[in-house]
Amino acid sequence: MAEAHTTAKQRPLKSVPDIVISRLPLYLRALTLLENEGKLITSSQELGERLGVSSAQIRKDLSHFGEFGKQGTGYHIAYLKKQLMDILNLNQMWPVALVGFGDLGHALVHYAGFPAKGFEIRAVFDNDPAKIGRKVNNLVIKDSRNLEAVIEEQGLKIAILAVPFQVAQEVTDRLVKAGIKAILNYAPITLNVPPDVKVQSIDPVAHLQQMTYYLK
Amino acid sequence: MAEAHTTAKQRPLKSVPDIVISRLPLYLRALTLLENEGKLITSSQELGERLGVSSAQIRKDLSHFGEFGKQGTGYHIAYLKKQLMDILNLNQMWPVALVGFGDLGHALVHYAGFPAKGFEIRAVFDNDPAKIGRKVNNLVIKDSRNLEAVIEEQGLKIAILAVPFQVAQEVTDRLVKAGIKAILNYAPITLNVPPDVKVQSIDPVAHLQQMTYYLK
Repeated sequence: MAEAHTTAKQRPLKSVPDIVISRLPLYLRALTLLENEGKLITSSQELGERLGVSSAQIRKDLSHFGEFGKQGTGYHIAYLKKQLMDILNLNQMWPVALVGFGDLGHALVHYAGFPAKGFEIRAVFDNDPAKIGRKVNNLVIKDSRNLEAVIEEQGLKIAILAVPFQVAQEVTDRLVKAGIKAILNYAPITLNVPPDVKVQSIDPVAHLQQMTYYLK
Repeated sequence: MAEAHTTAKQRPLKSVPDIVISRLPLYLRALTLLENEGKLITSSQELGERLGVSSAQIRKDLSHFGEFGKQGTGYHIAYLKKQLMDILNLNQMWPVALVGFGDLGHALVHYAGFPAKGFEIRAVFDNDPAKIGRKVNNLVIKDSRNLEAVIEEQGLKIAILAVPFQVAQEVTDRLVKAGIKAILNYAPITLNVPPDVKVQSIDPVAHLQQMTYYLK
């Protein structure tokens, strides 16, 4: 109890459950929208309504990192936003490698949401000779064979995987060897990685299939 | 105990937690891969290793729907796959509406994973006069103003939302009024829908941001 006023910048001593971490970007997203609407103060109630979660859950999640607001006065949006960005290591622009320049890779390279939220695609790879050497967004598409050299040279830690599932594990192994520590995986397959490498997967089919359960 | 041999086709009497439902498509995906490798039988251990979850969790998840394998002999892959498809209502092709034909919409229309896994985009909408009337994949891009009429006429229940976040809620309200019951949302915003409408959201930035927490 005596330590309730630890600042958010110091990492909590106990490790925070992954499920809590997974919700922080959603809180950050909602705070940014509220800020864009011109608001200065919010409450766990208002955030909860926006996000469809309970205010108690928001308060409990945030309590892992310190105290960000007072009962009855709510949260200063700009302050809480900054704290969340510090916690999530978003006070820098993260350079990202994109592997696979098919239709999805094309959409990802042009997605304005990445640079606006702290991520910049700095290297694009494909194995198609017709694509290698082409310029997109001031980047020259590189030969996948040079993956390791480029990633090491640029010191990239994050990769987006947009390759066919048949080669996804093989490319992943190479990314991990080259020093990648976080992979956003669009291939519909579960990747095997060492414990110190994080993977988040996006499979729209899996999302659709879990909704059809509820349809007549 | 006397009812342990209920068949999977009958729905369980007790409602199954959403988190269990969310894992079934991943089991189905892994089973399909194993089948493609020529295997006939698998075990909760093998599935668990593939998916990075415990075999106990797989057995517990499946037990909500009946008994699919015997201790020591494992699961018949084709049988378990068929049961999961029945449970998830995937024994039919689901027609889907796509709203928004930007870079992402373009990638989604051309994604072969949808028809291969039970989903077919049957209507595409955009509000850009330069796109309306254009043909993609044997579909003519329709004016978003006609959303309701087309969805009702085709009896569509599933929509993919690939519009800018500023209009995502407004379009969602119209989709719901037109009878849509499941929305795959690519806009980086939490949507408000009635309790009988399901939403699954895909936000690559949120996925990236929860991984940077773990990066130095």
